[in-house]
Amino acid sequence: MKSLFITDIRDNQPVDSLFLVSSKNHGVTKGGSGYLTLKLKDRSGEIEGRVWDRAEDLGRTFDKNDFVHVRGQATLYQGKVQIRVRDIARVEERKIAIEDYLTKSQFDPEEMAKELMTILRGIKIPHLRALAESFFVDQTFMELFKRAPAGKSIHHAYLGGLLEHTLSLLKLILKVVENYQGINVDLLLIGGFLHDIGKVYEFSFDRAVEYTDRGQLLGHLVMEVEIVNEKIKAIPDFPEELGTLVKHMIVSHHGSYEFGSPKLPQTLEAIMLHYLDDLDGKIQSIQTLIGKEKESRWTSYHRAYGRSFFTGRPEEEKED
Amino acid sequence: MKSLFITDIRDNQPVDSLFLVSSKNHGVTKGGSGYLTLKLKDRSGEIEGRVWDRAEDLGRTFDKNDFVHVRGQATLYQGKVQIRVRDIARVEERKIAIEDYLTKSQFDPEEMAKELMTILRGIKIPHLRALAESFFVDQTFMELFKRAPAGKSIHHAYLGGLLEHTLSLLKLILKVVENYQGINVDLLLIGGFLHDIGKVYEFSFDRAVEYTDRGQLLGHLVMEVEIVNEKIKAIPDFPEELGTLVKHMIVSHHGSYEFGSPKLPQTLEAIMLHYLDDLDGKIQSIQTLIGKEKESRWTSYHRAYGRSFFTGRPEEEKED
Amino acid sequence: MKSLFITDIRDNQPVDSLFLVSSKNHGVTKGGSGYLTLKLKDRSGEIEGRVWDRAEDLGRTFDKNDFVHVRGQATLYQGKVQIRVRDIARVEERKIAIEDYLTKSQFDPEEMAKELMTILRGIKIPHLRALAESFFVDQTFMELFKRAPAGKSIHHAYLGGLLEHTLSLLKLILKVVENYQGINVDLLLIGGFLHDIGKVYEFSFDRAVEYTDRGQLLGHLVMEVEIVNEKIKAIPDFPEELGTLVKHMIVSHHGSYEFGSPKLPQTLEAIMLHYLDDLDGKIQSIQTLIGKEKESRWTSYHRAYGRSFFTGRPEEEKED
Amino acid sequence: MKSLFITDIRDNQPVDSLFLVSSKNHGVTKGGSGYLTLKLKDRSGEIEGRVWDRAEDLGRTFDKNDFVHVRGQATLYQGKVQIRVRDIARVEERKIAIEDYLTKSQFDPEEMAKELMTILRGIKIPHLRALAESFFVDQTFMELFKRAPAGKSIHHAYLGGLLEHTLSLLKLILKVVENYQGINVDLLLIGGFLHDIGKVYEFSFDRAVEYTDRGQLLGHLVMEVEIVNEKIKAIPDFPEELGTLVKHMIVSHHGSYEFGSPKLPQTLEAIMLHYLDDLDGKIQSIQTLIGKEKESRWTSYHRAYGRSFFTGRPEEEKED
Amino acid sequence: MKSLFITDIRDNQPVDSLFLVSSKNHGVTKGGSGYLTLKLKDRSGEIEGRVWDRAEDLGRTFDKNDFVHVRGQATLYQGKVQIRVRDIARVEERKIAIEDYLTKSQFDPEEMAKELMTILRGIKIPHLRALAESFFVDQTFMELFKRAPAGKSIHHAYLGGLLEHTLSLLKLILKVVENYQGINVDLLLIGGFLHDIGKVYEFSFDRAVEYTDRGQLLGHLVMEVEIVNEKIKAIPDFPEELGTLVKHMIVSHHGSYEFGSPKLPQTLEAIMLHYLDDLDGKIQSIQTLIGKEKESRWTSYHRAYGRSFFTGRPEEEKED
Amino acid sequence: MKSLFITDIRDNQPVDSLFLVSSKNHGVTKGGSGYLTLKLKDRSGEIEGRVWDRAEDLGRTFDKNDFVHVRGQATLYQGKVQIRVRDIARVEERKIAIEDYLTKSQFDPEEMAKELMTILRGIKIPHLRALAESFFVDQTFMELFKRAPAGKSIHHAYLGGLLEHTLSLLKLILKVVENYQGINVDLLLIGGFLHDIGKVYEFSFDRAVEYTDRGQLLGHLVMEVEIVNEKIKAIPDFPEELGTLVKHMIVSHHGSYEFGSPKLPQTLEAIMLHYLDDLDGKIQSIQTLIGKEKESRWTSYHRAYGRSFFTGRPEEEKED
Repeated sequence: MKSLFITDIRDNQPVDSLFLVSSKNHGVTKGGSGYLTLKLKDRSGEIEGRVWDRAEDLGRTFDKNDFVHVRGQATLYQGKVQIRVRDIARVEERKIAIEDYLTKSQFDPEEMAKELMTILRGIKIPHLRALAESFFVDQTFMELFKRAPAGKSIHHAYLGGLLEHTLSLLKLILKVVENYQGINVDLLLIGGFLHDIGKVYEFSFDRAVEYTDRGQLLGHLVMEVEIVNEKIKAIPDFPEELGTLVKHMIVSHHGSYEFGSPKLPQTLEAIMLHYLDDLDGKIQSIQTLIGKEKESRWTSYHRAYGRSFFTGRPEEEKED
Repeated sequence: MKSLFITDIRDNQPVDSLFLVSSKNHGVTKGGSGYLTLKLKDRSGEIEGRVWDRAEDLGRTFDKNDFVHVRGQATLYQGKVQIRVRDIARVEERKIAIEDYLTKSQFDPEEMAKELMTILRGIKIPHLRALAESFFVDQTFMELFKRAPAGKSIHHAYLGGLLEHTLSLLKLILKVVENYQGINVDLLLIGGFLHDIGKVYEFSFDRAVEYTDRGQLLGHLVMEVEIVNEKIKAIPDFPEELGTLVKHMIVSHHGSYEFGSPKLPQTLEAIMLHYLDDLDGKIQSIQTLIGKEKESRWTSYHRAYGRSFFTGRPEEEKED
Repeated sequence: MKSLFITDIRDNQPVDSLFLVSSKNHGVTKGGSGYLTLKLKDRSGEIEGRVWDRAEDLGRTFDKNDFVHVRGQATLYQGKVQIRVRDIARVEERKIAIEDYLTKSQFDPEEMAKELMTILRGIKIPHLRALAESFFVDQTFMELFKRAPAGKSIHHAYLGGLLEHTLSLLKLILKVVENYQGINVDLLLIGGFLHDIGKVYEFSFDRAVEYTDRGQLLGHLVMEVEIVNEKIKAIPDFPEELGTLVKHMIVSHHGSYEFGSPKLPQTLEAIMLHYLDDLDGKIQSIQTLIGKEKESRWTSYHRAYGRSFFTGRPEEEKED
Repeated sequence: MKSLFITDIRDNQPVDSLFLVSSKNHGVTKGGSGYLTLKLKDRSGEIEGRVWDRAEDLGRTFDKNDFVHVRGQATLYQGKVQIRVRDIARVEERKIAIEDYLTKSQFDPEEMAKELMTILRGIKIPHLRALAESFFVDQTFMELFKRAPAGKSIHHAYLGGLLEHTLSLLKLILKVVENYQGINVDLLLIGGFLHDIGKVYEFSFDRAVEYTDRGQLLGHLVMEVEIVNEKIKAIPDFPEELGTLVKHMIVSHHGSYEFGSPKLPQTLEAIMLHYLDDLDGKIQSIQTLIGKEKESRWTSYHRAYGRSFFTGRPEEEKED
Repeated sequence: MKSLFITDIRDNQPVDSLFLVSSKNHGVTKGGSGYLTLKLKDRSGEIEGRVWDRAEDLGRTFDKNDFVHVRGQATLYQGKVQIRVRDIARVEERKIAIEDYLTKSQFDPEEMAKELMTILRGIKIPHLRALAESFFVDQTFMELFKRAPAGKSIHHAYLGGLLEHTLSLLKLILKVVENYQGINVDLLLIGGFLHDIGKVYEFSFDRAVEYTDRGQLLGHLVMEVEIVNEKIKAIPDFPEELGTLVKHMIVSHHGSYEFGSPKLPQTLEAIMLHYLDDLDGKIQSIQTLIGKEKESRWTSYHRAYGRSFFTGRPEEEKED
Repeated sequence: MKSLFITDIRDNQPVDSLFLVSSKNHGVTKGGSGYLTLKLKDRSGEIEGRVWDRAEDLGRTFDKNDFVHVRGQATLYQGKVQIRVRDIARVEERKIAIEDYLTKSQFDPEEMAKELMTILRGIKIPHLRALAESFFVDQTFMELFKRAPAGKSIHHAYLGGLLEHTLSLLKLILKVVENYQGINVDLLLIGGFLHDIGKVYEFSFDRAVEYTDRGQLLGHLVMEVEIVNEKIKAIPDFPEELGTLVKHMIVSHHGSYEFGSPKLPQTLEAIMLHYLDDLDGKIQSIQTLIGKEKESRWTSYHRAYGRSFFTGRPEEEKED
């Protein structure tokens, strides 16, 4: 457990704690001696560090993306607090607690995975059930799926967030389909399961949540088609049209071209998947925003939503 | 029951059936004699009628918006079938079956109203329950509410459609709130109940669904605020803020400015109401579109949706 | 009269002046003693204040939204000037001049109100004249109407701005209608009078211009419909359609959905009201922007307008 | 005066009237004989004509854009009325009344021109007054200016419409500037005069209103800059900046990029010109639309405006 | 070779020619006898056919999508020409010339394919050259690629159009890259080759150009990723990043979200591919539009382009 | 050559170098003595300077837009480095190297101009060639044309950038037209030459690149029409239509209304000019962005493009 988080560091304060090195650059002073400029991170934020003494020697002992033990003093420079580093040493990964560097879901990933598998094993169309199963037996995938975030910042943007969102969506689907006739719940469930799995590779999230090159260049929708094609190929006699219907839900689930879907939802299941996915993400996202500022009656203005949110609750909420 | 619907009238066919007069104009032939040009309607469509003989006399016996008994002959004029009217006579309203002129919900309005009242009587916040109750005891309102359509063409566009949509939305709300914490279900239910009630006065629907002048000039959102204000005033000590939260759901439920909401949804309940209302309308609308063309694999192109819909179903739908 | 405005405070300067407390937070130093962080305002801006000594005692004597007498020293912290407060004491509201905290119209509100009433008493349609009169006799309303701003920042954003804008619009209407036939000037005048009156309750403006909760959740258009409904109900035999035409001008006066009108202007009077309201606001707003920077040939870039404005005038302006 | 207008021609009716030939094509029947297909126009519409007999001989006597005297019989073909032409002969232009082929302003062009010149001669800045005068003495221009329409269809779309609109705008300017300070009325007047003069060459309007090639390829804004440059060059010592301010009003008067202004209005006069021009055009356009359908309470839906207009008037309009 | 094309059929004309049956429906007359309603197509258009006599017998001899020999008489019905079919008989596909039913490129597909292969064999990066080669040896693909259209209507919308467009683009690339440094021509060439190959399966084009279900549900961009993945997997040691760069060009080549690219072009090659593909399509499309109407100075208005095109050429074009 | 560039100045460093004065303001300290606040520029950036001693005397010796020799000390103020000026003296313009203050093209302007003239002298249509020649003989124009930038920031935003961009475009045109038939290369070349020449007067660029008043109020498109009109008038018998086609390319070359073209491209040459101009600008702009950040795999996010760019190159780029 870290002794000090970045968000708590004040001017003049002594620093003795662990950080992740997110960038590391060498410079030379006018006097000709070398120094290091570092960016140090933990889950609470980012701070600049400067190594003025023994920069060359110390610099050889660690690299970008290493965890380090830093000793020094906080100081104000150009209006911002930075750390004047006196000593710095690499720390082995097994000695750090990753949750000090990345936030994570409040739910247990193993529990969530179990619940998700139970739901999907209720699928009646054999080929779709087999498709779900082919992911469950893929241990590499499942390990990533349990840890992946659902995004960098919008919603469920923490370790385990992808699984949390996917499970919530599946449970929502089960409830909503009761209200309508003529919806194929199996298709909708498999669509709900697979709609974001590409995020497992769209992001890297071992030390910080970042886009991978592939993720940035292809996007999770297209990567999901690639993954699903791999799995389908291994299932004997998977009907082509059924595969197309599954992939159609994936490529259309953002709901409109502007949001990066190359196709609009054209089946009832694809339309419903889009709505429920959007609803689940928005509720989580807005509840989080409101939760952070519930002391004041209005949250600050959120540009992505073009509005503030009202945090007040009806006075009679608990009445009667 | 009508003997012949407009959609079935062919060139040269004798006509002897009931219609609604939707327009009636007098003309004079070059020879100087008067004639009548009529538009005749039933629930299947509209057709032109011409009265060449005894036009003055016959014209005195009925008016626009009357039901009439027409005898004559179908004939082709300028590429379109019209009725050359030999005889026409006004029919008393009590002798016609309104469902021959307006389509209606397949569900029984009394049953739906009962189910809706049961749900809303489950509201726990006393003032909100009282607000719902104040509508139930307003018999004039309830009669209209049971008959009103939810629109002219988009979704639930038939007699009883408003009640059908409102009830479906309330049931959907009850299911969806189970999946989330921190949503005030009472607020959401009263919002669901009231979100479209202005349509009761936005449309006239005794013979055809038309916008009223007030409906066209003010819109159902604003009219709902007026109605709710009336009801709230009659409830002792209704908290002002609670009223504001209810009215906020109403004025924001279209979800964005472009769709005519003067305010964006700024509470969790308002956001959820918007999503679920939109979902319920879309599902009903698209299922209707698909239902009409399920013989072909694709529906025709729908400009409002910017797409065709796929009507194919997974082959394994009934498998296992 | 304040001795010192925030905009004039420099590093190291002694401070001895009155301010409005816009926020007040308690903190604890590492040494364990309490301190206060304040936001202090006047009409020229906002500045941070810190109370390090006797924070507990001093903090008990005043609250957020109080006016205070502050004694201390300006000092630079993290690149910004703040006040290190030595002494602070609550000042009674009757001892401060509100115009030190809020800017106001350069015109006399009583004069403007008189001119406005004279114009509106020239309305010929009796029910519309009665509607105007019903506001004039509502003293609570009239007091607010004379003080309310027309906005937080866009145009006429100062005390009395709403009345100034409304009067200017009425005078503009009187001139413009001379150029056209078939415009009902009475409708247009009452529309001009009522189009923004909801701002009286949309904003609170006793110490700073802020949105009220109701204002933010319902908006001034909807609130105006509520107010007008109240007044109309008290006028015997007010024709429903006439009321609808008045309310239509209100709900459509922003001119398009994107700007928050739930209905587009559909009568000549509503269209003209939208144009003239927009013109009057824009002229005042842009003249203010140009006035602030008339020393340079171009104003800075204004994002809301997507442009800079040219401040140069034709050389021959005074010629001949 | 024409004896029969196209809009009044019915199936089977004998035709003996004058028309404008808007297209003329030769064809050959299967039997090998030649025939002519014509489009014939007058101010009320367009109709097809067919010449089956003596097509070669008759065809030699007239050409596209000629006026002709047609004798024949109306007949229904493929659901549309056309004229089976028995005889056709060219008519000299001096024998026809152009207003039978093009609608025109209800105001006298000479009277309007006089009023416009009087207003513009009130300009105080000598160079601007000289600029106006340089147009008045250009007889070729003035003749066109008195006859030109302001458009093909949107507003003031008839002979003399450009002058009518320009004069109305100048009178509007004179009224509106009284309400504001700091507006240079001379600039605004010259801008109002010149803002649409390019339409004189953008359209041809001797027989029908059509875009010229130059008009279509350059547009009236750019053509106006060309014209104004010509005039300015002939005025000694016209200050360059003054010319730029005039041309700026021209190139920005459509108000936004989407409406074809390559520059946004950046001076107060340019902004006001845009608003008042837009207002004047809209009022004329919408009053015309309402005038055409005032029998019904609502006009038909106008796509360009995205709405219908309410034609009802307040019942108390003439009261008191 | 067909003796008569639909576009040339006139009222009353005898018909004796070959057509494609695009729809076939059975009906029953009031008299109780069966009849057939057909849609018949060739490359010039579509016409309705009615079989009144021996409908049952004749109907058994052919089906939708068959080619048929039709004998009958053209006749006018409800303002449109249709064929009253006297005799109809199925014709074997080998007896018809497909180009009577579908238009095709004016260039020889074998020649185009050769030229395309020569260009792509000039690629220097071995894995990319191998990727191109893997398509050349896939005979099934190459046969389709030589026949496929590039679209239903926008550009190169005829048999062989895909190959014609692809080849033109490759040649354009070779020229344009000479003007810039730092562009990887190999990447750009492979991108140009593959950017539209999914159209081979997005459309069916054996009798008419139609979207396939897969094409409509997934779109050619996504289908191309699937195809390229198949090919890459069979090439030993194909570098993953190289594959990603190829697929990035594919998924981004429409250039913006609104046009269905799920990713924006983020490499120089992807950006250039987008521009040159767009240019090549537009030039072919607009040249075709102008070519069809070069008799008049302006083409008709094309909604997709929001404009007419000027067909006039500079008079001095051949001068000097 | 300057001894020190602004970008290299650090806190506490002595300063002794040349700068451009971009603003100069007088102030008075609380003590009553005068001081100067300066903005100093060179091609690397901008820095604030303060003169505390002898401010009045020193201030009389130089003005805004002068070059000055500054001696003083860098110091940190409110978190930013500024220069505390000890001595400052005006430097004659002939003694400074303008490229220290403005960046410039890496290509020799004389060489570029020669190559451009050679290309344009290859035009075959005599009047177009004469039009090009009329610019070449205009020495004032040519001097400006060789020095002008193509913009303030978007692309080719440095001295000589306009010529560099124009030449690159002409060479691109020559290549691309080989791929298409029916394009008039002469028109396209003259369009390419003239499409941006208005920038010569739209910007001032003797000390910094700034919009001129005329440039800001009229824009380079309109100014180009003015310039071309001047030149055409001096060429005997220049055909009006040919001039219109040239000017059409100019006024439409931004390609859409949103980007400030008052007309859409309506000829093949205008369409092609728009595409190739856009391509050439984008390639230069994006290559510059990538060049600046090629150390990291992704550039930072560019708002104007709505994306980051990938800087990675295919590993096999140099293979084979």
